[in-house]
Amino acid sequence: MAWFLARDGHHVIARDLPGHGLRARYPQSYLERPFDPDRFATEPSPLAQLSAQDYADELTATIRQLAERMPRRQIVLLGHSFGGLTLSRAGEAIPELISRIVYMSAVMPAPRKSLFDYLAIPEFSASKIPPLLIGDPQATGALRLDFRSADPAYQAEIKAAIAADVDDQEWQAVTNLTSPDVPAGPLAEPVTVTAGRWGSIPRTYISCTADFTIPAAAHRLFIDEADKLTPGNPTDVREMPTSHCPFLSEPEELACTLLQL
Amino acid sequence: MAWFLARDGHHVIARDLPGHGLRARYPQSYLERPFDPDRFATEPSPLAQLSAQDYADELTATIRQLAERMPRRQIVLLGHSFGGLTLSRAGEAIPELISRIVYMSAVMPAPRKSLFDYLAIPEFSASKIPPLLIGDPQATGALRLDFRSADPAYQAEIKAAIAADVDDQEWQAVTNLTSPDVPAGPLAEPVTVTAGRWGSIPRTYISCTADFTIPAAAHRLFIDEADKLTPGNPTDVREMPTSHCPFLSEPEELACTLLQL
Repeated sequence: MAWFLARDGHHVIARDLPGHGLRARYPQSYLERPFDPDRFATEPSPLAQLSAQDYADELTATIRQLAERMPRRQIVLLGHSFGGLTLSRAGEAIPELISRIVYMSAVMPAPRKSLFDYLAIPEFSASKIPPLLIGDPQATGALRLDFRSADPAYQAEIKAAIAADVDDQEWQAVTNLTSPDVPAGPLAEPVTVTAGRWGSIPRTYISCTADFTIPAAAHRLFIDEADKLTPGNPTDVREMPTSHCPFLSEPEELACTLLQL
Repeated sequence: MAWFLARDGHHVIARDLPGHGLRARYPQSYLERPFDPDRFATEPSPLAQLSAQDYADELTATIRQLAERMPRRQIVLLGHSFGGLTLSRAGEAIPELISRIVYMSAVMPAPRKSLFDYLAIPEFSASKIPPLLIGDPQATGALRLDFRSADPAYQAEIKAAIAADVDDQEWQAVTNLTSPDVPAGPLAEPVTVTAGRWGSIPRTYISCTADFTIPAAAHRLFIDEADKLTPGNPTDVREMPTSHCPFLSEPEELACTLLQL
């Protein structure tokens, strides 16, 4: 997807947050042969100590460096899924350096709410993720999925939840690039956003209408709550008829949408 | 590593070649639980049909699009390891669009030579890769490594061959992002480079002196052969005291070197 933006002259920078990419850390039971499902369900996450502040610090440091070195460039943040929590924190911290925030089927919490505050409400009931979680997040410190499961039914359910419209072979490649743990801590921490700071930044919400990870009803709630906070700066809402992963199923279409912002 | 270039205003584009990244395809035996080593040693590679031309077509198409859309930008190619074969093909195809080629511990073959022509010669004898290959490349169609091996000795030997100076935890993340097969076909195909076309492009060779995948003696041979072909355009040689993966062990240092070119 980055390619379609980059070839148009946009400076696309994809930075891994702590605990992701080259800094991904795996529960060792996920990697072992033979695989021991009981150990995988109970092993503490190596990412359990990461905080929302760790994520936000990384992003704000990145933005500050770019703003200093390329002062005439506009900086647009794009985040996906749980990444929305970090976008909101960065927006609250340094709104003056950000020209737009784009939430792509992402968590966009109302003031003083955490993601966990949303999980139990009706708008989240269409999410297919909760029954797939392995182990107890309180014990492991992570929301854990088994992307390398040997159970075809479980594999099919993960794909239905996250990427129903993605090519099967591409999805297999993605699951091999994906680490199993999302640290639970940052999802439980309330996010402070205010109308005067975060709320001053133009924002777009790309609502993937066939999203069964963060359901479209939850997108709508995020948008309604945000617009209530900043009636003078309503959310620019775009819909795409995709799963949670439009960057996989419709990358060029997604880039087109972004290029129009 | 891209970050250190991007924050300085360079337009960094990392495109996956066919069979890599989201287009990686795995022998299914690599993914199965329980793991069957005999099947893994014999299963034909899903990438076996890829050709050198497939790689080169992808790269030249990318370059053409960038040159058309950003005509005032200089295009520098950077490639690593086997990627050097594709750099040379693209250089021969469209030298007028490329301002420099940077081979980073990469294969830079003399005219009409394939990588396989080099593997048996003394300059390659320090490579620690051959004894680690799984199965018969003639039968599987791939050079295959078991990055997820349960054998600590094998794991240690892979790291010693490719990434001795990389942090252990980072290397574990890398091995989980890496697919096991390099298709053998493109490594057996001779590369045509001529003094008038490929040889007209300024080129840099970054020789990693502690490289035990493509040994430093082989780098020297590539450079000597190239300089004999184009005495008026000698290779700009830079040395780094790293393993095969300076982008992992010394990313900022590597970026510094690149920024000076």
